[in-house]
Amino acid sequence: MSPAEPGVSEVSVGAEILVRAIPGVPTVDRGDDLVTLIIASLERANVGLRDGDVLVIASKIISRAEDCFVDLSTIEPSKDAKALGAEVDKDPHLVELILRESESISRKRKGALIVRHRLGFVSANAGIDASNAAPADAPAHSGPWVLTLPRNPDATARKLHADLAARYSADVGVIVTDSWGRPFRAGTVGFAIGSSGIPPIWDRRGATDRHGRKLEATATAVADAVAAAADLVAGQADEGRPVILVRGLRFKSSAESSHALLRDQENDLYA
Amino acid sequence: MSPAEPGVSEVSVGAEILVRAIPGVPTVDRGDDLVTLIIASLERANVGLRDGDVLVIASKIISRAEDCFVDLSTIEPSKDAKALGAEVDKDPHLVELILRESESISRKRKGALIVRHRLGFVSANAGIDASNAAPADAPAHSGPWVLTLPRNPDATARKLHADLAARYSADVGVIVTDSWGRPFRAGTVGFAIGSSGIPPIWDRRGATDRHGRKLEATATAVADAVAAAADLVAGQADEGRPVILVRGLRFKSSAESSHALLRDQENDLYA
Repeated sequence: MSPAEPGVSEVSVGAEILVRAIPGVPTVDRGDDLVTLIIASLERANVGLRDGDVLVIASKIISRAEDCFVDLSTIEPSKDAKALGAEVDKDPHLVELILRESESISRKRKGALIVRHRLGFVSANAGIDASNAAPADAPAHSGPWVLTLPRNPDATARKLHADLAARYSADVGVIVTDSWGRPFRAGTVGFAIGSSGIPPIWDRRGATDRHGRKLEATATAVADAVAAAADLVAGQADEGRPVILVRGLRFKSSAESSHALLRDQENDLYA
Repeated sequence: MSPAEPGVSEVSVGAEILVRAIPGVPTVDRGDDLVTLIIASLERANVGLRDGDVLVIASKIISRAEDCFVDLSTIEPSKDAKALGAEVDKDPHLVELILRESESISRKRKGALIVRHRLGFVSANAGIDASNAAPADAPAHSGPWVLTLPRNPDATARKLHADLAARYSADVGVIVTDSWGRPFRAGTVGFAIGSSGIPPIWDRRGATDRHGRKLEATATAVADAVAAAADLVAGQADEGRPVILVRGLRFKSSAESSHALLRDQENDLYA
């Protein structure tokens, strides 16, 4: 946990990285114990974790385990939510829930509502998910159901990290991911919304290029890059691969959370 | 090249992806033939390409081969460049070059100049790179040298793709990458600035979730996700791994270029 020496990278990446879905992870429902379920899946697949392994968990299964299901018909839209719903052409019940999940509105337009989530990142609709969203025991005629993001993905990552590190006696990392669209670019990629163990940012201030000159671009968003790779394998459709092992990194265990991936708002020209 | 049937994904991703640096790629200098050099490196490493393999090339070696080196002392700053340089606290010679490489200024502030590059994407300093930037035969007392982005990375990807597909009789993909910072998020990740063969966007309109419901998030920026994964292995410091093989995807060969990754400016709330 000691800070890296100046010029010494806290992360190194081997010449080969493996991104592998853990098979046979069952459908997660509210009340399930995720740590037990993930360790059982690793054991069934005969996968032991080693130093540097990163386990990447789709936020959706954490939300399901934490019972972040919401029956939209039970949400009473405020006057503001009704007005905003009319403005952006979205269900006012959903808009009310988006507002409850958010700190502020970043941008809005017909069909689009981009917010700063209470967890600090910026995403459309506060990351609320309407696919695969109903709990298994949802009463008939209830819903429509949606799923909000996990309550505290960094805390969940820390808990999972501690349990996995103890179980496998290894310096592992845990990343919790969600996928979003981005300014300027089409399509979605995975982002880290929670992390533990692995340094979220690989800070290379003091590192040098091949000619001994100091590097300009000094900080790689390593947890976001790992999230993007894992999200590609996880898929979002019927593949159902919510737990991904990424092998090939080495790092000193970091006390930083995924919060380090959030740009200061004062320092953000697009805030 | 035929369009995918509705509901049929043009990309599928196996349960395991391998991201592997091709060893022994020599330092590239102006005038080098990249295709020859890359195929020679693959052969020395005993790597044959198969259907679905994606070769990810760091834009820097393409810029070097294309002689995109610029001796800043030879660049005459315009009046506008001088004023802007004073405003953002950057060398007016560099600012002049940034403006020549750009379509428009996206945001500016002391220490930061974010532009829409002539190739369409948005990045700081038009992607101009000052590390490892001098040509091998640079005269003494010349410079400072910088390196602009490749002239047409999609065209380079197409050429490389055609040559590799012919050489290996395989449906392969080629992606050209650069790494940048992003709005809202700290740190840099890799992005695709050129592509050929691999569909840049994995459009899943019509795909269904595990319960048969249509998916909401329907388009994955697959080339950006692959670029982010490859960039992590490529490193930016003295590792020197500019050519990365990504294995484990399957796709129908696509005629689309990386241009598909650019969000319409009209449709961009942060433009």
